[in-house]
Amino acid sequence: MALIVQKYGGTSVGSIERIEAVADKVKKARDAGDDIIVVVSAMSGETNRLVSLAHAIQERPNPRELDVLLSTGEQVTIALLSMALEERGCPARSYTGGQVHILTDGAHNKARIQDIDDARVRADLEAGRVVVIAGFQGVDENGNITTLGRGGSDTTAVAMAAALKADECQIFTDVDGVYTTDPRVEPHARRLERITFEEMLEMASLGSKVLQIRAVEFAGKYNVPLRVLSSFEEGEGTLISFEDEGMEEAKISGIAFNRDEAKLTILGVPDQPGVAHKILGPIANANIEVDMIVQNIAEDTTTDFTFTVHRNDYKKALDILRNTAAELKAREVSGDDAIVKISLVGVGMRSHAGIASAMFEALAKEGINIRMISTSEIKISVVVDEKYLELGVRALHEAFGLSE
Amino acid sequence: MALIVQKYGGTSVGSIERIEAVADKVKKARDAGDDIIVVVSAMSGETNRLVSLAHAIQERPNPRELDVLLSTGEQVTIALLSMALEERGCPARSYTGGQVHILTDGAHNKARIQDIDDARVRADLEAGRVVVIAGFQGVDENGNITTLGRGGSDTTAVAMAAALKADECQIFTDVDGVYTTDPRVEPHARRLERITFEEMLEMASLGSKVLQIRAVEFAGKYNVPLRVLSSFEEGEGTLISFEDEGMEEAKISGIAFNRDEAKLTILGVPDQPGVAHKILGPIANANIEVDMIVQNIAEDTTTDFTFTVHRNDYKKALDILRNTAAELKAREVSGDDAIVKISLVGVGMRSHAGIASAMFEALAKEGINIRMISTSEIKISVVVDEKYLELGVRALHEAFGLSE
Repeated sequence: MALIVQKYGGTSVGSIERIEAVADKVKKARDAGDDIIVVVSAMSGETNRLVSLAHAIQERPNPRELDVLLSTGEQVTIALLSMALEERGCPARSYTGGQVHILTDGAHNKARIQDIDDARVRADLEAGRVVVIAGFQGVDENGNITTLGRGGSDTTAVAMAAALKADECQIFTDVDGVYTTDPRVEPHARRLERITFEEMLEMASLGSKVLQIRAVEFAGKYNVPLRVLSSFEEGEGTLISFEDEGMEEAKISGIAFNRDEAKLTILGVPDQPGVAHKILGPIANANIEVDMIVQNIAEDTTTDFTFTVHRNDYKKALDILRNTAAELKAREVSGDDAIVKISLVGVGMRSHAGIASAMFEALAKEGINIRMISTSEIKISVVVDEKYLELGVRALHEAFGLSE
Repeated sequence: MALIVQKYGGTSVGSIERIEAVADKVKKARDAGDDIIVVVSAMSGETNRLVSLAHAIQERPNPRELDVLLSTGEQVTIALLSMALEERGCPARSYTGGQVHILTDGAHNKARIQDIDDARVRADLEAGRVVVIAGFQGVDENGNITTLGRGGSDTTAVAMAAALKADECQIFTDVDGVYTTDPRVEPHARRLERITFEEMLEMASLGSKVLQIRAVEFAGKYNVPLRVLSSFEEGEGTLISFEDEGMEEAKISGIAFNRDEAKLTILGVPDQPGVAHKILGPIANANIEVDMIVQNIAEDTTTDFTFTVHRNDYKKALDILRNTAAELKAREVSGDDAIVKISLVGVGMRSHAGIASAMFEALAKEGINIRMISTSEIKISVVVDEKYLELGVRALHEAFGLSE
């Protein structure tokens, strides 16, 4: 008998019919002999509805009260799902974040879980009940309702699994697993049976938005085996865990990409200590997130510095950079917001030389010019003109045999 | 500086615009220097929407989960109202029933308040905040969410006022006070400036459904001055309190009536101890509520027994009574479901003789035949044919000078 945490997102519980389908799935798992904790999101559309109510009153809703408001979304779902389980003869009990003492810090709208009191949940499991928990929410040490930010239900599920030392945390979503790349771009994309936490982090942050990054980090930190699978179809999904002997021996697990990039370059900056900070400090102060950063020595005394930002922040970042350039007496500032990032991800890369050159070769064969390169232990990212996105992804998918 | 509890019902907070109007009212009261606690209901329509969701899943929704579901209705309102207050520069903080420890028994869907922990509310008031509390809900000793049943927000407001020894509990509603009778029946009906708890109880239970009976009982028990006033118009409303010297010296405060009555009579029952129980026992066992009860001695050895029930229960009660009549060897059973009850209510009745005869005279003058009479210390009720309802109410309103 295993202890399984299942998490169903907004689309999976988006209507009465879907809630009933989830109840069928949960009951089936329970009948198979496992103990089940279910974490659910608000019914799809509900959070947006509540946010519009708030915005009708305040342009910037009071953060504490916004959490009081938004947390009702999941509370509706837990009640309805518990009723659906009871109706199927499957004893169930619902809990809000506050009721099971999901203790968070006091950062309203983006709180972080600090502790979970598992006594109540354990007692229900021992009594043979399915426990249904509202995702995305908790309480701070003063009992104020907090929310974890959008998508925080994944984090709730993982935190619950960690606190109760569950055997597996299953994230049910509208895709049936993690793919080698986006099937809308490469029709031969293949579902992975397994992937490591590190790879998943790189895949998620690079645009394969299957899981919340925080949830994956959390699962990795507490070694909670995480499985992504479909709410709507049968199937094994993809298991995310630490690398082990049974792991597929692929060098590359997948290809991630990001369409929303823009790149900025400052050329001929006097090369002296602290220059990177002088360039990026004002950008960070403007709350612009920087993704890739590359610095080259251009001549003996000056350096070229390039970084990428989200395309929405491009114009703002360019203005800031021009000011900085004037201050630093740099030669020139340039930028391009018609670029994309494509990344190869795989733990196999660590022990296999030549991955990078094979990548560059595959792109060159298609005449794709590489505008920027950045590497980490398990990832190689290149920036290319946006028109090459599909071609580049397909060429790499083919070159690294990911369809097989 | 007074401490005022204000309660706004579902219609008063039924839209964003109305919530903003309530915020204006609350701020005005706060700016006048009083400490304000606001208790709110769910936005009108919301509770029904949630109930339909539940019924789509379970014919008889699980009571515990129904409370989890329904309590979200008020939670939405407290958040939105607090935002509207903050937006007006009026510091506010919202609390669910659980957060201010409104402790109830465990009777889901119809829980009763047992205790309120007022420390948190007092701290907020001292910090200059308006405290916004979700009506209708609490938690049991195990932390399960409970609801007080429909209209329970009035009870929450009164309980809050009692716990904090508030100077006044103001119930804002869609009428501007308690009237001498229903203005839809008697256009000359007049708003009362004051009324006693006892009178209000008689008025409420007899059909002037301005306030929840439980809230009035509660207010009387803890001596919380209660004021009914309009959410939509300015005005003093009606103050409900104990009789005092300043009270209007009217003999009669108002005329209540009830259209939904039906009467049943069992004739020629052997007059022996326990006969009333033998007649009403089976009625009570069938969950039929009995209103008026009148018993007359017909001859030396038999008695006639008449009672009224809600019109919906008439047929069921008649069947039961026929069985009972056969068992008791009674002579006859008769009934009438085209009757109404009209009642004069007033604490002045206690010290004034002749009220009853003046009442009967006024009705006789209009040719209205009285079918049944029942009296209490502060009330005289008569049953008449339903066609006489309006005529009877107007005749009594006139006879007792209530328009003046």
